[in-house]
Amino acid sequence: MSRIRMIVQYDGTAYVGWQTQPNGLSVQERLEAELHKITGEEIRLHASGRTDSGVHARAQVVHFDTDSRVPPDKFAYALNAGLPPDIRVAYSCPAPADFHARFDVVRKHYRYTVWHAPHGSPFLRNTALHVHHPLDFAAMEEAAALVIGEHDFSAFKAAGIEMKSTVRTVYESKWFKAEEPGLICYQIAGSGFLYNMVRILVGTMLEIGGRRRSTADLARALESGQREDAGPTAPAHGLALWRVEYPAFDTEDYILPDIRA
Amino acid sequence: MSRIRMIVQYDGTAYVGWQTQPNGLSVQERLEAELHKITGEEIRLHASGRTDSGVHARAQVVHFDTDSRVPPDKFAYALNAGLPPDIRVAYSCPAPADFHARFDVVRKHYRYTVWHAPHGSPFLRNTALHVHHPLDFAAMEEAAALVIGEHDFSAFKAAGIEMKSTVRTVYESKWFKAEEPGLICYQIAGSGFLYNMVRILVGTMLEIGGRRRSTADLARALESGQREDAGPTAPAHGLALWRVEYPAFDTEDYILPDIRA
Repeated sequence: MSRIRMIVQYDGTAYVGWQTQPNGLSVQERLEAELHKITGEEIRLHASGRTDSGVHARAQVVHFDTDSRVPPDKFAYALNAGLPPDIRVAYSCPAPADFHARFDVVRKHYRYTVWHAPHGSPFLRNTALHVHHPLDFAAMEEAAALVIGEHDFSAFKAAGIEMKSTVRTVYESKWFKAEEPGLICYQIAGSGFLYNMVRILVGTMLEIGGRRRSTADLARALESGQREDAGPTAPAHGLALWRVEYPAFDTEDYILPDIRA
Repeated sequence: MSRIRMIVQYDGTAYVGWQTQPNGLSVQERLEAELHKITGEEIRLHASGRTDSGVHARAQVVHFDTDSRVPPDKFAYALNAGLPPDIRVAYSCPAPADFHARFDVVRKHYRYTVWHAPHGSPFLRNTALHVHHPLDFAAMEEAAALVIGEHDFSAFKAAGIEMKSTVRTVYESKWFKAEEPGLICYQIAGSGFLYNMVRILVGTMLEIGGRRRSTADLARALESGQREDAGPTAPAHGLALWRVEYPAFDTEDYILPDIRA
């Protein structure tokens, strides 16, 4: 029995999310079905975390155990031959027997993309939120900085979900303008995130950008812990799981293409 | 009666191409149907040129005549309200009565995008050709430079199509690496292009990059005018109509978003 670790990328548009659900096709289900074809085994995948319906992954990490003789680095090629083109395995390799894709995460990065233009873009329609009103970018930058550090993010979690602790540490939180004019991104890195936390933070900061809310309101929501003090949940399709870091494995080191002549 | 000029963007994946065809839905048909809803008129659109099935447009130019009282700059908003999200009108404005989207073109630009990586990308699957073998980028750059200038491009047109002249002038022809690692682009500007010319040029240069053909072979095809001396036609989905220039109108001046706080 050996443990395999993979980096999976997906366009989440057509899926109910990472995790298998009764109401539609999940990325997990699709991958497990393909692994079954290749190995003949009933393989259960463990991911770094769930992603919601419509949310994308540039670098989701999964692990699984198998007795298959397929060389670990060949799983990527074997799976891609059968997977639909909106799911790709970017990398596969052997993992230590005690590696766990979820429990071992030390840092996760998400990116939220906004297409800021008078009209929508046919090319970004599934991966960026279209915003057509003016945005006070400086206020959004200021708001993003407030989030850095250890905070109780109770105000920024989906209502009705209870967990042991709502304290999380955010290491990076910033807005930046991409090279392409009109494309603006929010990048956040943290020890972990509450359910819908990134989308509620983005929804709140976009209201600050649109001057329907102030940075002081965001500070107040962090203090009060009341969901109603924060803004709306930004739509799923602008969000992507961007990068996952483990003590001895960082997706960033493996997903960049390297083909030389 | 007034003449309107628009810049249209589309993801060509779901369409049979720009021009109306008996075998499926065209972008032209979809736009004309929407114009009919808005104006009640049977409007015929004239575009800068056709794009094939699967080919995209970042900046297609169209014109039409109407008696409608819709303000010219509002056509973009009115059309986008009813169009599917893979077609957007980026700009609409009044045009001189003698402006013609096809006959007045002075320069057209196309871009062909290649995703050069071991595995495909879920996010670029419809807009970039995936190449996973090594590419000799320097040889491709050299080949691209050979194309600049006035040439008889007979070897680079789809077989069986006859036209008065096969001489065209290419002003720009170059490969470059995009900011995102793995993404490489071919950019070409010319007075006009023969049917499939850009795709055959790209197919030939990709064979040169893969060392299955030399730059001398491309030079020979330019000399001989024989289709069989050129390489294969590159797939449609990597190609986009990038920019169109007229004597007094350049799409580049109007499609970049400009929303200030």
